[in-house]
Amino acid sequence: MEHLGRHVIIELWGCGDAINDRGLVERAMRNAVHAANATLLNLFIHEFSPQGVTGVAVLAESHLSIHTWPEYGYVAADVFTCGSTTKPEAAAEVLRVEFGATNADIRELERGVMPASMAQGRPREFANA
Amino acid sequence: MEHLGRHVIIELWGCGDAINDRGLVERAMRNAVHAANATLLNLFIHEFSPQGVTGVAVLAESHLSIHTWPEYGYVAADVFTCGSTTKPEAAAEVLRVEFGATNADIRELERGVMPASMAQGRPREFANA
Repeated sequence: MEHLGRHVIIELWGCGDAINDRGLVERAMRNAVHAANATLLNLFIHEFSPQGVTGVAVLAESHLSIHTWPEYGYVAADVFTCGSTTKPEAAAEVLRVEFGATNADIRELERGVMPASMAQGRPREFANA
Repeated sequence: MEHLGRHVIIELWGCGDAINDRGLVERAMRNAVHAANATLLNLFIHEFSPQGVTGVAVLAESHLSIHTWPEYGYVAADVFTCGSTTKPEAAAEVLRVEFGATNADIRELERGVMPASMAQGRPREFANA
């Protein structure tokens, strides 16, 4: 394993009214966690006034967050997972569909790539992560 | 304003024992939130067995997350803030110092940059975000 985690950064535009509905945001988050094959440890949702919802799911495999700007039809989300059995890209797809985004920019960052300067003498150990 | 949020991605290596201590992780997170000039809405911390800590702070301005791998001296963190008065880079610096990282890779992503294809006809409105 060359990295410890995958961090998917999700920009969704042209989203529908669902992104201002606490219940629908929660549903989308739970479905996304399920699609990612991740385990939910904690879910916290906050509604802002006059609009906007933030939701953060703590996962056994890291986290999923959502921040919505209904006034722009915009959602900023990210899904961070570790382990070889999780599918953060599947979570991103669930969010795109459930929020009715017309424009999606989804990119993935590799997290936990040991700097070469620190890996000397321990590549084998790290390879077993 | 050309973007709605700033997302700072933080890779810390060579960290000390603090990253396996729930109390010290919580302290670092609270200090980081304070340094970022952000408002804490909720803080959740989970300790893994046999090691590792995950902490997620929900902020009025978005979120801060930390995931630690003590066996590698590694911390994956991110700080996402919106608004012009927050300083996510200051939070990153607090985490680097409190965890005693010997190697830090800190990069910033602009979030909520409206796609050009969607901005037509509404640049002025968006500029007032």
